Amino acid sequence: MEQAFLKYLAAQKQTISPDSIGIGDDAAVLSWQADQKLVVCTDLISDETDFHLAEVTPQQIGRKALAINLSDIAAMACEPVGAFLTLLLPQGAPSLELAKQIYEGAAQLGATFNCPILGGDTNSWPGKLAVSVTVLGRCPRDKPLLREGAQPGDAIYVTGSLGGSILGGHIDFQPRISEAIRLREICGLTAGMDISDGISIDLPRLCEQSRVGAEIDARLLPISDAAKQMSQSTGRPPWWHALNDGEDFELLFTVPGAEAAHLEAQWTDSTPVTKIGTIQSGTKLFLLDETGQRQPLKPEGFSHQ
Amino acid sequence: MEQAFLKYLAAQKQTISPDSIGIGDDAAVLSWQADQKLVVCTDLISDETDFHLAEVTPQQIGRKALAINLSDIAAMACEPVGAFLTLLLPQGAPSLELAKQIYEGAAQLGATFNCPILGGDTNSWPGKLAVSVTVLGRCPRDKPLLREGAQPGDAIYVTGSLGGSILGGHIDFQPRISEAIRLREICGLTAGMDISDGISIDLPRLCEQSRVGAEIDARLLPISDAAKQMSQSTGRPPWWHALNDGEDFELLFTVPGAEAAHLEAQWTDSTPVTKIGTIQSGTKLFLLDETGQRQPLKPEGFSHQ
Repeated sequence: MEQAFLKYLAAQKQTISPDSIGIGDDAAVLSWQADQKLVVCTDLISDETDFHLAEVTPQQIGRKALAINLSDIAAMACEPVGAFLTLLLPQGAPSLELAKQIYEGAAQLGATFNCPILGGDTNSWPGKLAVSVTVLGRCPRDKPLLREGAQPGDAIYVTGSLGGSILGGHIDFQPRISEAIRLREICGLTAGMDISDGISIDLPRLCEQSRVGAEIDARLLPISDAAKQMSQSTGRPPWWHALNDGEDFELLFTVPGAEAAHLEAQWTDSTPVTKIGTIQSGTKLFLLDETGQRQPLKPEGFSHQ
Repeated sequence: MEQAFLKYLAAQKQTISPDSIGIGDDAAVLSWQADQKLVVCTDLISDETDFHLAEVTPQQIGRKALAINLSDIAAMACEPVGAFLTLLLPQGAPSLELAKQIYEGAAQLGATFNCPILGGDTNSWPGKLAVSVTVLGRCPRDKPLLREGAQPGDAIYVTGSLGGSILGGHIDFQPRISEAIRLREICGLTAGMDISDGISIDLPRLCEQSRVGAEIDARLLPISDAAKQMSQSTGRPPWWHALNDGEDFELLFTVPGAEAAHLEAQWTDSTPVTKIGTIQSGTKLFLLDETGQRQPLKPEGFSHQ
């Protein structure tokens, strides 16, 4: 099967430069521009943990496997260069067809982000489906955006709207590559990451790396329609879902307080950016709840195992 | 578990340059020297297909997962820069301990090849153990060594001795990184690859990429002690195992006929290199058997699914 799939991949003829070498040799070869930093992220999704094979298409699985990695590249405010796709396919399934469909989903998303699939590995085994993706990216500026660097007084922002991704958003979200790059052009981002486990878990991670505290306001959270829908079945307020639900894959970033007005005036992108709070000195994190009551921010989201 | 493992990894403090960024952010960041080509390979091994968890140590599994990728880097005559390790761990097992031990095995081998573990991903799931590794390498010359480029009249060589890796060699083999680089310093290698499925399957791949034929001589094959041992239980001649057994991870490469004597005179490495045949025009592959009889080379090895 592997040889047949490699032939299929080689026929897709995705190349990134005239002297790059595509699929079919022992490794892929890329030219690299002088002195551009290289960023590398790798993330795996598996059946029954990150998706249910019976409920989604193989193309959606391939798309998600690439998208979560592109979201990591966006979190660094970098640009993707190419992706490597490793498949663990259940034995007995029509493997070649499944592999092609997963690849298609990844390649289609990759094409919209200038991120061709440059290689990978395919394996059949007596287990469930898993898809591992590694993405290489390049840093258009001196330094990638990191989780460290936030300063007391910085404004805390998020892109898009939050919550309820389990209703579908976790499968078809848009990685915020272009938004991150545009944000860096407009203002001096001090720190950033993507929201994979929910703000109540991810903001503490950013604050820990930056050695700062924070206060966010539940009344400022941009609430998705899916969060409102979830609220109806769980009985929890929509802001609870915006704060705690995972897999939004929006950007969480900080901007010097003095630049916040400039950012909001300059921002014309269709993806909204919303200020949700402020970085504070110390190491404690607080939440202003829907009544304006100040309380400790508790991590109630779903942490990826 | 993932957070605990990431903390463990971050504490290992493997960095490759003063301005590289280690584990703990959304992606790893590497500096890259101007205009050096980047090579990327990725390979996965899984329980019951590539090893049996009950029969080997976790350290051996981590070592093998990295070693097969380093063998691909060697096949391109390149040098490793760093590795990314993705683990799929069986739920219920003492996962953190298992993850650390797998990492240890990979890191220990990586240290001997200047290939630190720079990042990765860890997942628990209701399936068996799988380990996926991606290695980045750099090309010390203009071009990596490829499977294409062999010319009629070239001598065909292999490193080491062949066959019977199932008796243990497939777990503890040495990737031929330094041998490949030294070979390229001594002579003009025209094509190369590593032997993963056995010469009878791998040589046709090299010949197909180079659009040439070949003739090899069973009497010239360097036969390992393990091949002789296999022979006693299978009743097949030792050269059959040297020709067809997989997972030797030795180098298979071609040298212009006129440079063969020079190579053999200059070669002082402890890993032997042995001429086993000649590249020919056309596309057919032949084997001279133990009686000198010429017959078509048939692929009888184990092809990785």
